[in-house]
Amino acid sequence: MAKDMTLLWGSGSPPCWRVMIALEEKGLQGYNSKQLSFEKGEHKGKDVLAINPRGQLPAFKHGNITLNESYGACLYLEEQFKNQGNKLTPENKAEVALMYQRMFEGLSLFDKIKQSLFYDRFVPENERHDSAKKRNAEGLKDEIKIWEGYMQTTGPYLAGKSFSLADVIVFPVVAFLFRFGLNEEHFPKLAAYHNTVKDRPSVKNTWPSNWKDSPGMDTLKNL
Amino acid sequence: MAKDMTLLWGSGSPPCWRVMIALEEKGLQGYNSKQLSFEKGEHKGKDVLAINPRGQLPAFKHGNITLNESYGACLYLEEQFKNQGNKLTPENKAEVALMYQRMFEGLSLFDKIKQSLFYDRFVPENERHDSAKKRNAEGLKDEIKIWEGYMQTTGPYLAGKSFSLADVIVFPVVAFLFRFGLNEEHFPKLAAYHNTVKDRPSVKNTWPSNWKDSPGMDTLKNL
Repeated sequence: MAKDMTLLWGSGSPPCWRVMIALEEKGLQGYNSKQLSFEKGEHKGKDVLAINPRGQLPAFKHGNITLNESYGACLYLEEQFKNQGNKLTPENKAEVALMYQRMFEGLSLFDKIKQSLFYDRFVPENERHDSAKKRNAEGLKDEIKIWEGYMQTTGPYLAGKSFSLADVIVFPVVAFLFRFGLNEEHFPKLAAYHNTVKDRPSVKNTWPSNWKDSPGMDTLKNL
Repeated sequence: MAKDMTLLWGSGSPPCWRVMIALEEKGLQGYNSKQLSFEKGEHKGKDVLAINPRGQLPAFKHGNITLNESYGACLYLEEQFKNQGNKLTPENKAEVALMYQRMFEGLSLFDKIKQSLFYDRFVPENERHDSAKKRNAEGLKDEIKIWEGYMQTTGPYLAGKSFSLADVIVFPVVAFLFRFGLNEEHFPKLAAYHNTVKDRPSVKNTWPSNWKDSPGMDTLKNL
């Protein structure tokens, strides 16, 4: 039980989701969990601002300690609860290195997603250009191809044989791609990875509630 | 001595510089060091592509292990050489959490720098907008103010009393700001932090060579 922990989160956000997966993996169920709505702007509300002055989710506390950066929260939980729940750092030095490499390449993947899928959200109308949209879509496709290539030689997990922090952190981003209609036939290795990890208890237990109740998008189906 | 390590790097790049600082801190001098020129496009050359298919620097190898993501390389070096050189993880749990929090907030700071200072490099001419430049400059200023605020209550290092991975990773980004003319009088706490860390041996020994030979810019002097 983790009564001294509080997580404010929004459904479907990879940064929030990865912290929820890390908490499940480390056997830290029972934390104070509060779901907020991005659509209603609740991430800019005073409950969040009291923990995270940037007004972003996740907002996470462990006792008096605040850790709002999702990568940081995952690394912290693994380090502070080394001998509890599932070990998320491989034994093997080469897998540890690959875990770190993939974990941080995950930032590129999420960046490309934001640049392409959320272009209209981030770029004011009078600054939008079809040339930028096209370039961003190509950038996302190239990035996804890199990951498809990785999974042709590595597996079943991102860093090899063990489920690790790389999966905790990057899986929600991969799931996001399939939620937006990524074609399983075009990216079969990534699809196999997605299908392996989506049934893991920590992932099933934290699956975005709004994804269960609504169909996915088909934005990426032709990619 | 670290003869089984190879680092390909470019001068003045915060991602390269942080790996060099980490290597110094962990007593891993003597690695194979190869400086390349971004200006000449050498980061897209075959030496780099053999290690880093993205054609980016740093490109880092330890024996057969490849770790090109600078955050990952720093975390890996600290973990694999726990008992060598300087310990870069604080003992105290609250400082560990703060180390992770600041380390990853450092990504926001570097993003804002790139959006503002490198706007013309990243955005094709026909897609540029004065409104975007103005918004990006304000975004950078707001971000720097957040860091100035942090240093009003924390210090002398980013996570408190101990020099940690947060400093290894974020100091080069802070130094970049002053290289671009950030006004010490407008941001006195950040300036004090910069002045404290810049004389640290690991930092002095790796100070960008092209910064020594040329004056800084004054782009940020009015911020």
